[in-house]
Amino acid sequence: MTRSVPQALLDAPLARGHGRGPGSLQRQLHDRLKQAILGAHLAPGSRLPGSRALADALGISRNTVTAVYDLLAAEGYLLPDRQGTRVAALTRPARAAAPRGTGPRAAPAVPAVTARRLSPIQSEPAQADGDAAWRPGVPALAQFPLAEWQRALDRAMRSAGPSTLGYGNPLGEPALRHAIAGHLGVARGVRCDAAQVVVTEGAMEALALCARLLTNPGDTAWVEDPGYRGARTAMHAADLRIVPMRVDAEGLCVRDSDWTARPPRLVYATPSHQYPTGAVMSAARRLELIANAQRHGAWIIEDDYDSEFRHAGEPIGAMQGLVAQAPVLYVGTFSKTMFPSLRLGFLVLPDALAARLQAPLAHLLRGGHRHEQLALARFIEGGAFGRHLGRMRRLYRQRQAALREALSRHLRVPHAIDGGHCGLHLTVRLPRRYPDAAIAAAALRHGMAPAALSSFALQPSADDNGLVLGYGNTPAERFEALVKRLSQLARAAA
Amino acid sequence: MTRSVPQALLDAPLARGHGRGPGSLQRQLHDRLKQAILGAHLAPGSRLPGSRALADALGISRNTVTAVYDLLAAEGYLLPDRQGTRVAALTRPARAAAPRGTGPRAAPAVPAVTARRLSPIQSEPAQADGDAAWRPGVPALAQFPLAEWQRALDRAMRSAGPSTLGYGNPLGEPALRHAIAGHLGVARGVRCDAAQVVVTEGAMEALALCARLLTNPGDTAWVEDPGYRGARTAMHAADLRIVPMRVDAEGLCVRDSDWTARPPRLVYATPSHQYPTGAVMSAARRLELIANAQRHGAWIIEDDYDSEFRHAGEPIGAMQGLVAQAPVLYVGTFSKTMFPSLRLGFLVLPDALAARLQAPLAHLLRGGHRHEQLALARFIEGGAFGRHLGRMRRLYRQRQAALREALSRHLRVPHAIDGGHCGLHLTVRLPRRYPDAAIAAAALRHGMAPAALSSFALQPSADDNGLVLGYGNTPAERFEALVKRLSQLARAAA
Repeated sequence: MTRSVPQALLDAPLARGHGRGPGSLQRQLHDRLKQAILGAHLAPGSRLPGSRALADALGISRNTVTAVYDLLAAEGYLLPDRQGTRVAALTRPARAAAPRGTGPRAAPAVPAVTARRLSPIQSEPAQADGDAAWRPGVPALAQFPLAEWQRALDRAMRSAGPSTLGYGNPLGEPALRHAIAGHLGVARGVRCDAAQVVVTEGAMEALALCARLLTNPGDTAWVEDPGYRGARTAMHAADLRIVPMRVDAEGLCVRDSDWTARPPRLVYATPSHQYPTGAVMSAARRLELIANAQRHGAWIIEDDYDSEFRHAGEPIGAMQGLVAQAPVLYVGTFSKTMFPSLRLGFLVLPDALAARLQAPLAHLLRGGHRHEQLALARFIEGGAFGRHLGRMRRLYRQRQAALREALSRHLRVPHAIDGGHCGLHLTVRLPRRYPDAAIAAAALRHGMAPAALSSFALQPSADDNGLVLGYGNTPAERFEALVKRLSQLARAAA
Repeated sequence: MTRSVPQALLDAPLARGHGRGPGSLQRQLHDRLKQAILGAHLAPGSRLPGSRALADALGISRNTVTAVYDLLAAEGYLLPDRQGTRVAALTRPARAAAPRGTGPRAAPAVPAVTARRLSPIQSEPAQADGDAAWRPGVPALAQFPLAEWQRALDRAMRSAGPSTLGYGNPLGEPALRHAIAGHLGVARGVRCDAAQVVVTEGAMEALALCARLLTNPGDTAWVEDPGYRGARTAMHAADLRIVPMRVDAEGLCVRDSDWTARPPRLVYATPSHQYPTGAVMSAARRLELIANAQRHGAWIIEDDYDSEFRHAGEPIGAMQGLVAQAPVLYVGTFSKTMFPSLRLGFLVLPDALAARLQAPLAHLLRGGHRHEQLALARFIEGGAFGRHLGRMRRLYRQRQAALREALSRHLRVPHAIDGGHCGLHLTVRLPRRYPDAAIAAAALRHGMAPAALSSFALQPSADDNGLVLGYGNTPAERFEALVKRLSQLARAAA
């Protein structure tokens, strides 16, 4: 059925253009029609000309008109029916902003404790600007073999059938769980098979699952102090009673009396590389912790967040594998070994729990990100992951040595360096007269994002003053200038 | 330094092979060395021959040996040092399984209410087998334009710099938030700008955030009954008091007395297409719900889960845009419009809350999946998303018509069909003498996964008996045979 073409659509000629991008004929026609509808030049319910008539009037191809009609119909502007195409009556009068505040009362105030589960403990806010120097926990982004990863992802997308677009196994792709189990067995001495591995949305979801599955509200959780803020957020969100435990040069420090005075249901620890002090938990403490946890019915969460990057001495296996049937839930992440925005982590359940938690986990998790998981499985099994780890280990070792050198030459305030056997950061302790929070705030204004050591403490002691310097994503050639600047800021803050 | 080559490495010649895949020289040598270490043919601490010596002895290139040494070092089998390469002492004696149950006591039992936050309400478990017929909520996976999506993803990966590998904005990529705001304004009449949009891990995370940010433990939440199980899981996880509200042909059914007898903090509703009954909430009820929520200080969660697929009548705009400053949190997902394993959803905050919730959200969310988000932004802005929606709307409309036809011809039990104006499923009510749970269980054994209507109810009434048939991922040519089988199963279960 032919209808006359409304003048609003013919006012100006369309500029020549190609393809579907901005400026293309298709885009111009789409925008012109949309504006005519929004501007009421085309009334709701009115019929549009047939695609051929409009194409002829505008001197463009009929396919272009059809594509634009389809898109506008999909967007809700047009209603195709058997007689052709009508302009939709938009429920919302988009052309006239409705009066504001028409309701009988303003919207309710946010409850006083809006972020009830954040208060009183705040986790570290994620940062939009990941490029600032010294930011802890960010790996060398520019060194990631993106092209190789892209090929792995391409292959996964090409070879997986359409059913891979569906939800999939909520505990993760079997191929990835298998690859993780294999890697952990060799690289970290973790005893597990694929059935014990649960793929999670980063380590944070793994911690949240531990809390949710193994505690009741009001149970006690021990956390390291100073320690990883994300762990406290997870425990807090699960309504646990959080008991801060001191950390010394041998890691988490527990007295026998603690087990009876405030017996925990969960113990959160980073034995390979205490975050942020870098202490390595001694073998004696590990065995003692395991034995006491078994005796008192507690579960240990072992967060092995950057243990793949060990720089000195023998590799120290995970606590999980130290003793058979250890009551340990092992948590890891690919944020540092691959890249943060991948958002893949994992949880290794104790053998005794794996079967029993299968059903609740299937209720709590939704699977997904399957192409990424399949690509990562291939990346690990094919050796690309191991090669990347090897390269990064060398790089971080060099950066750490360069940072120590730069600190000893250019940091002109008294200081002591903690850790360094592992990972992507060094912790520089400062006398209290150099307040770390002030230095960190000043540094941020100079494009540097070291973390204040005191910000990791629940019950700060005088010792908890210093800067956590992440060197993962900061090239060594910048160290001299950056440390000099940091030194000035520290002295200015004193 | 040259060392003799251990016999274990020379036992058999390596087969010729290329590249790095299975069967390649590199892989063979890697496996041989690994076996030698695990099998104790190479003792912990012993030194390996230099790469040149081993290459000569095996008649292969030195590069291959170096690559294998690097990989084994990365995996933790070898320790490079200044003198060469040593075999690592694996903390876990991988070759001999340690004795089991050596601890002083077995691991603690899982707390009685292991899945404390699931009980008493169970959500629908995610399913590994998404290919079963009739599964509700699964879109037409085989029709998704995967190649086009892959190109969008490729482009995003190629054009984004290395900093995109970092965490990014915890509330989501600005480009995607902008694209979502634009799409929702036009397609759903939602009033928002990009700053109000939060990108989430599917709709489930959006619901969890609503509960966490806007309530205190013990607050009351109204949910539809029958209704979406995932919403109840989220409310339950936030320790809310859940009040089931009946649903009739006009959707969520509230009496004035409910507002005083059990005043809610949160109201969960699916006004466009009640899940699972398919009822559309009338305009009168929408306005009343908004006005009462404003009067009583409640927030409404509008879950608009499949509203893009409207099959009949004018498009009905979202409740969010019906009244200015409506106390509505709008939740949507790309699981149906794109594909489930993408795991991207979103939450639109009311204008009044967006700025205030920025900081707590930055603590709760980690961002990530940035390439996927950038690709999706481009998919939407470039029109590919709209075209796909248009195609799918036509497909689902055809499938629904075919399903109605098949039911009227081949379902030989008394029944009534609910809904059908929207979405990907029909609800077939059955007399109580045909127990839906038994039919659903029997169907599963025949490769069909309809959901039992009674399983969505908290306080089941006699009416809540029937089958929810998802036709999104089931081709029409199978309908006749499938409905005939379903009919047999229903009669057998009676």
